[in-house]
Amino acid sequence: MLQQSWTLLGSRYVAEYRVLRVREDRYRFEPSGVEADFVVCDSADWALVVPLTPDDQVVFVRQFRHGVRAVVLEIPGGLIDAGETPEAAAVRELREETGYTAERVHLAGGLIPNPALNNATCHVVLAEGCRPGGNTAFDPLERIDIELRPLQAVPEMIRRGELRHAQAVACFALLEARGLIALDRRAPPA
Amino acid sequence: MLQQSWTLLGSRYVAEYRVLRVREDRYRFEPSGVEADFVVCDSADWALVVPLTPDDQVVFVRQFRHGVRAVVLEIPGGLIDAGETPEAAAVRELREETGYTAERVHLAGGLIPNPALNNATCHVVLAEGCRPGGNTAFDPLERIDIELRPLQAVPEMIRRGELRHAQAVACFALLEARGLIALDRRAPPA
Repeated sequence: MLQQSWTLLGSRYVAEYRVLRVREDRYRFEPSGVEADFVVCDSADWALVVPLTPDDQVVFVRQFRHGVRAVVLEIPGGLIDAGETPEAAAVRELREETGYTAERVHLAGGLIPNPALNNATCHVVLAEGCRPGGNTAFDPLERIDIELRPLQAVPEMIRRGELRHAQAVACFALLEARGLIALDRRAPPA
Repeated sequence: MLQQSWTLLGSRYVAEYRVLRVREDRYRFEPSGVEADFVVCDSADWALVVPLTPDDQVVFVRQFRHGVRAVVLEIPGGLIDAGETPEAAAVRELREETGYTAERVHLAGGLIPNPALNNATCHVVLAEGCRPGGNTAFDPLERIDIELRPLQAVPEMIRRGELRHAQAVACFALLEARGLIALDRRAPPA
């Protein structure tokens, strides 16, 4: 079996940042006996939330992302605090980042964003009946713009490359596969 | 504008691994004047390929992933070599990992897997007319199993949590949004 091909020999943290620790895991690959180190970005799980207003608008956010050094269109979300449920983290991040509050939230499932490199699971939450009125609470180093777009525009946003955030794209796909949202799949106008 | 909120002050590499370098970027956040370091996993772009056989089976792969310490179901892919196109990388990785060769490949677009932390773009390639017969070429530390599944089973695989790899899920969503594949969206049996 694939799982038994690898024996974990040891593990050590080599760097620590606000949001993650860099870990080196040493393995022996049993088929050849070769030993090697693998780098892992070790973080808490996070939650991403697809927030829908009563008239089926999605509350997107835009923020500068330091990995790609550019402003990125995505959906609200963030690391889950110790002892917090994914749903509670989604509600909290939604309010902190956008000021919106939700009538109902539903945990749709978990995705693994980068299993080769990252240990984390991304928990996908649908928030319905979202309305403005809460108080945003940006981190000291956060600045976020809100952008409402119709849910039915999402396939076209993906098609045009306007929505390129892989985890956000996968969240919509998971909600659709779970039957929690329905996306119009007619071909776009030529 | 959000982009102008951040001034890059400096950048240094703090660790180097086979597949990535860990970088610290120092920024000044202009609204407050606060300076802070952000960690970035700096790697080459990669390609992921959705390989379809002539009878619309998807060539999935299973391999042990050190980030999540588990065997993961995903689609073939890997880092793009210097000077290589995404399509060429997709064809090469498909052959190396599965032994399959493709009649036609089509670059569908790019996704950003983790823009907060990673600089890389994931290029999404559709490979059609895939057939076995090439020679696999595993890395010395690679062991990969192949699994053929009908394309029309993909929504159900996502729904059941069998396909949890966010980038793979997003690849199917992008191909569908681009009209390059059509997925049956009838509700699954109760």
